[in-house]
Amino acid sequence: MKFTAATLDEIRGTLAELPGPDLESATRAAAREAQLTKPAGALGRLEEIAQFLATWQGRHPPRLARPRVVVFAGNHGVAARGVSAYPAAVTAQMVQNFVAGGAAVNQLCKAFDADLRVYEMALDQPTADFTLEPALGEVECARALAYGMMAVEPELDLLCVGEMGIANTTSAAALCLALYGGTAADWTGPGTGVAGDALERKRAVVAAGAARHAGAGDGLALLARLGGHEIAAMAGAIVAARFARTPVLLDGFVSCAAAAALHATAPGILDHCLVAHRSAEPGHARLLERLGKAPLLDLGMRLGEASGAALAIGLARAAVACHTGMATFADAGVSGKGG
Amino acid sequence: MKFTAATLDEIRGTLAELPGPDLESATRAAAREAQLTKPAGALGRLEEIAQFLATWQGRHPPRLARPRVVVFAGNHGVAARGVSAYPAAVTAQMVQNFVAGGAAVNQLCKAFDADLRVYEMALDQPTADFTLEPALGEVECARALAYGMMAVEPELDLLCVGEMGIANTTSAAALCLALYGGTAADWTGPGTGVAGDALERKRAVVAAGAARHAGAGDGLALLARLGGHEIAAMAGAIVAARFARTPVLLDGFVSCAAAAALHATAPGILDHCLVAHRSAEPGHARLLERLGKAPLLDLGMRLGEASGAALAIGLARAAVACHTGMATFADAGVSGKGG
Repeated sequence: MKFTAATLDEIRGTLAELPGPDLESATRAAAREAQLTKPAGALGRLEEIAQFLATWQGRHPPRLARPRVVVFAGNHGVAARGVSAYPAAVTAQMVQNFVAGGAAVNQLCKAFDADLRVYEMALDQPTADFTLEPALGEVECARALAYGMMAVEPELDLLCVGEMGIANTTSAAALCLALYGGTAADWTGPGTGVAGDALERKRAVVAAGAARHAGAGDGLALLARLGGHEIAAMAGAIVAARFARTPVLLDGFVSCAAAAALHATAPGILDHCLVAHRSAEPGHARLLERLGKAPLLDLGMRLGEASGAALAIGLARAAVACHTGMATFADAGVSGKGG
Repeated sequence: MKFTAATLDEIRGTLAELPGPDLESATRAAAREAQLTKPAGALGRLEEIAQFLATWQGRHPPRLARPRVVVFAGNHGVAARGVSAYPAAVTAQMVQNFVAGGAAVNQLCKAFDADLRVYEMALDQPTADFTLEPALGEVECARALAYGMMAVEPELDLLCVGEMGIANTTSAAALCLALYGGTAADWTGPGTGVAGDALERKRAVVAAGAARHAGAGDGLALLARLGGHEIAAMAGAIVAARFARTPVLLDGFVSCAAAAALHATAPGILDHCLVAHRSAEPGHARLLERLGKAPLLDLGMRLGEASGAALAIGLARAAVACHTGMATFADAGVSGKGG
């Protein structure tokens, strides 16, 4: 695929040509799983993860030598509407914190031996206020998608996709409301911790944005109108990973909203993705139902910055270790069921 | 405490003198957590884990340099009643598999850099059939408890407690039924995978055991009558860990049944324990309600052998890494809430 796609239509064309699963690797993974020294299915979702990685890496045994965590950062015009508990300056401050190694995601990447890349996307040029006009516009959206695509290099074994951007749960909520309907309250939550009047303001902004732009077109068209630089970049990374045979761990509400924009356009696009963690942000559970995805973890986190996805690398490591390292019944001289 | 306690009464005496939490370390953990560069509470249960480790290690910052996984293995007289999908010989075969490094728990300990110890408990001397007489008797039960206590050495940072024993979900179910009441069906599940007639047989054995021994005394008395060597040893390890200031991760249904026998005798005894994973074995969810414990993971696993607890070491590592490694708002120059 061309990672320099210049228009949303070119990206739509790409979404019509998605590579499928590697069924041979999937079959080999299932065959090995059945021989390992445990009752069938006793490792639960660890077995699912091992088979998922084999299927979408197109390789058996699956490998986890090169996991990468990408964090895209962007600023949002709607931050000026008082929808966040933190000032917009915090986006750039947190990027500096990522670079200095002081954020949660830095510690998680160190703990699970993952490569962390942080992409600062024109923080001095926030998106437009989507209650008044399109946040990005189609050209800028396509550019952000292509930028995100470039974060995917060949030979990665797993990609964790996350973000930082003050006010971006507002953008994600508006995108979900425009995609799926319902009420603003269904999709709007505290984000970094707004409550009371600020939460009411946030809901009103979400409702106004969705009302202005819903019906404007497909998921990508809505992404251009209600998304943000970092949200479009995450969508691009998800698409590029599919073509690079890199399985993806989605993070929280905002990363799944980026995924939802793709899913609305091409439902199969998320087959190479697992959702790492169910965010405490209430819209996330609702969104996961729409996407048909069961999260791996449910620990009440609501931080973004790919923290939930990075945490789930530990589960993926465990899954690969068990699948590749365990003895078979025959090797170990263990009697089988009923034996 | 005396780890060589020779009678259940001595152990009852020990349970009356449990050391409490280190509130100073808990306070210091909470104070640091509030300064880290994230919205308050945004790391969810990772924050809880960090504070739990500090509180029960009696140390701030908490440390995770020496986690240990202990797996006790025992055989059960009721295995002869056809309650398992696997023959009793598999207990010893799986111990050999642990020693050879081929089991799931070996891979998980390697992945999370934990020390694994396997304790084979007189596998050629299964417990008595508890439908006919006490499985262990008080002297043998006290000896198994003391044996389990010896698995806890000073200076461990975390203890994961698990087991291997064909037919031990039958024993755990009978213990739960005797402790909490209900019906045999409430507590009896497929274990390694029994269904149909075998599951009916298993339920009948559980019902008969509980009917014979319920009302015989406190949790420890029931443990002696319905438990097993490995179940009593897990209970001993949990008690010893409390005195050694070693926080504990409980594993699945059988390890929590061991904990339940203690809890029925001294409710505060499990305050230094977290439950790692909710087993797919249906009685486990019901048991966790009785113990008032919310599991950290819910991945459909049902293997025992401390696999769920070992997997959760990854979460504990992540929690400690974030708590100790993250920058504070002041250090990183990040604006606070409303700032």
